[in-house]
Parts: sequence; C-alpha cells; structure tokens
Amino acid sequence: MNKNGFIHVYTGNGKGKTTAAVGLAVRAKSHGLSVCFISFHKNNKRWGSGEFKTLKKIGIDVFNFAHDTIIFNKNLKKEEIRKQCLKGMKKIENIFYENRYNLVILDEINISFCEKYLCENELIYLIKTRPLEMELVLTGRNAPEKIIDLADLVTEMKEIKHYFSKGIAARKGIDR
Amino acid sequence: MNKNGFIHVYTGNGKGKTTAAVGLAVRAKSHGLSVCFISFHKNNKRWGSGEFKTLKKIGIDVFNFAHDTIIFNKNLKKEEIRKQCLKGMKKIENIFYENRYNLVILDEINISFCEKYLCENELIYLIKTRPLEMELVLTGRNAPEKIIDLADLVTEMKEIKHYFSKGIAARKGIDR
Repeated sequence: MNKNGFIHVYTGNGKGKTTAAVGLAVRAKSHGLSVCFISFHKNNKRWGSGEFKTLKKIGIDVFNFAHDTIIFNKNLKKEEIRKQCLKGMKKIENIFYENRYNLVILDEINISFCEKYLCENELIYLIKTRPLEMELVLTGRNAPEKIIDLADLVTEMKEIKHYFSKGIAARKGIDR
Repeated sequence: MNKNGFIHVYTGNGKGKTTAAVGLAVRAKSHGLSVCFISFHKNNKRWGSGEFKTLKKIGIDVFNFAHDTIIFNKNLKKEEIRKQCLKGMKKIENIFYENRYNLVILDEINISFCEKYLCENELIYLIKTRPLEMELVLTGRNAPEKIIDLADLVTEMKEIKHYFSKGIAARKGIDR
C-alpha cells in the first residue's frame, strides 16, 4: 500500500494540543508543504483569532466550523451545533476529494465526539476516503478509542500542573 | 508578589513539545507580545531550519546554542557542549537583565540536564533572576524534578503510539 501520509492524534487534558497543531502547521508550511487548518468549536472572539491571522498571512488556509459550544452559550441547541459540524464534515470531504493539501489539521474535532455532536464512525468513514499521501492531524481531549486505533501517532498531553487550577483565567497570547 | 508571568514545562517522550513551543510563540506574537525563541541541541541542518525561518520572518527573535549533541556527532566532547550551553546561559542572563520580551522559550533545554551538560541548579538560580512578568517556557524530555517543582504549568507529552517505532525516519516538514 502506497501510504506515506500518517494520522496524528493529540489528545489529553493538558495544555499543548492546539498549540502543537499550530506549530506543526508552521513547520510544514515553512518546508513548502501546503497546509489547511480547520478548527471546530472555537469562538473567534475568544480563541485563536490572533494565531489564525498569522497562519493565513504565511499562506495557510484556515476555516472555522461550529464556532460556539454549549459550554459558552447555553442557548444553543445540540442539533444546531451538529448541523454546523456537518458543514465542517462536508468541507473535509471536499478537501479529500480535491487533494490539494499535504497536511490537513482538524483542530478540536474530538470535542464533536465527546459532546456527541458527531459520531466517531462518521469521521472514520470519511477518513478512509482521504488520499493516502495526505498527513492528517486531529486534536482535542477525549479522543475516541476507535480513532486512536486508526491513528499512526498518538500523543497524550497530560496535565501534571496547570495555573488554571489556581483560578488564573485564560490569557490572550498565551492560552488563547 | 506581583508575579503574572508563569513558567511552563513541556516534557515527556511523545511528539509535540517543540511544536507546542513554536505554536505558542506564533500565538503570542500574533497578539502583539514580544517573543524570543532559544533552541538548544538542534543541528540546523537536520532540525528546525524551516520553522525558525518563519518565526524570524514574523518578528520573533531566534537563537541557537549547542547545535550538535553527542548522539549525532560521536566526535564531540561533553566539555565542548557544556561550553556552548554556558554561552546559551549567558544569553538567557542578558535577556532577563534587559527585560525586552514578554515570552521567552528555551527549547530542548531539558536535554542539557538529562545528558548532564548543565546542572539544573544552574538554570534554577538563573530563572530566579528573571523579571516576574516574563512568561518562560522550557521544553525537552526528562525535565528534572526540581524544575517541575518550580513550574506553574507542566504538560507531559506522553507517547501512546509513534510511527518511528515502525522504522519510519523523521520527515522534513512534519517531524523536523
């Protein structure tokens, strides 16, 4: 099998999952690879706005789906978030079909499974249609077992200590 | 105590430590913070050359010390590497004294301790002289216990699976 693109999963409860994905995007782009960064469940007013601007500026394509989550907006309905996630899935399907990228990052997509907006089988089915030379990165806590089984590389970002537990709020430029 | 800059440690045997540091540097810079990225034990011909260029391009100051390690170059002497590490320590001392940066990253500095080029007390002594509003990030496997004690945030990047164990070599743009 001519498979040389791998599936990475960055999961766990510690800091460093999205930041590692951003770093990997920058590394890949710096070496001339074409990169697409798709984030899920990130409200741009709160998270990611700064780094996404920089990623775009250096030539990385950035997309956001299902911006809000019920955690931040209690008025949202699960079905509404599922609809937005499915739009993201459609985008991923097109990206696999067009095959223009060397590296595709699905940032925080694991949240879709642990909050049950999507079923992991929906993504697994989709992943199996991807070009085998494409490198794929999935981030977010609580990665489902089936996705871990499918992956070639899994790192658990394990929280040993975090200043959040001392009541420090997320700071712009460091945590968000 | 007017301490609002924290000490982060990214350690463990899994992929994602340097990439998280690169991502954090990009996030911080994107939000207008001033960032200095100091790498240790990275031979530019093999590692980091691409992403370091991009970091410089977006206005991050990048420095490298003790480029080679005995792992890659058996002809090197430990004392020679220690000398190069001490140059890096001098640079860090100046950076703390000048206090021009909001975020300072010491990438792979933990290697200096686990390969015994530096003693952790040398760095701890130095860290205690830093401006308390400065955010400091240390990466590298086998972070010493004393440094973990000092830190405000510690993430262990734990390898669950890695394609390296299947004999895949490090690939440009993804692993280096």
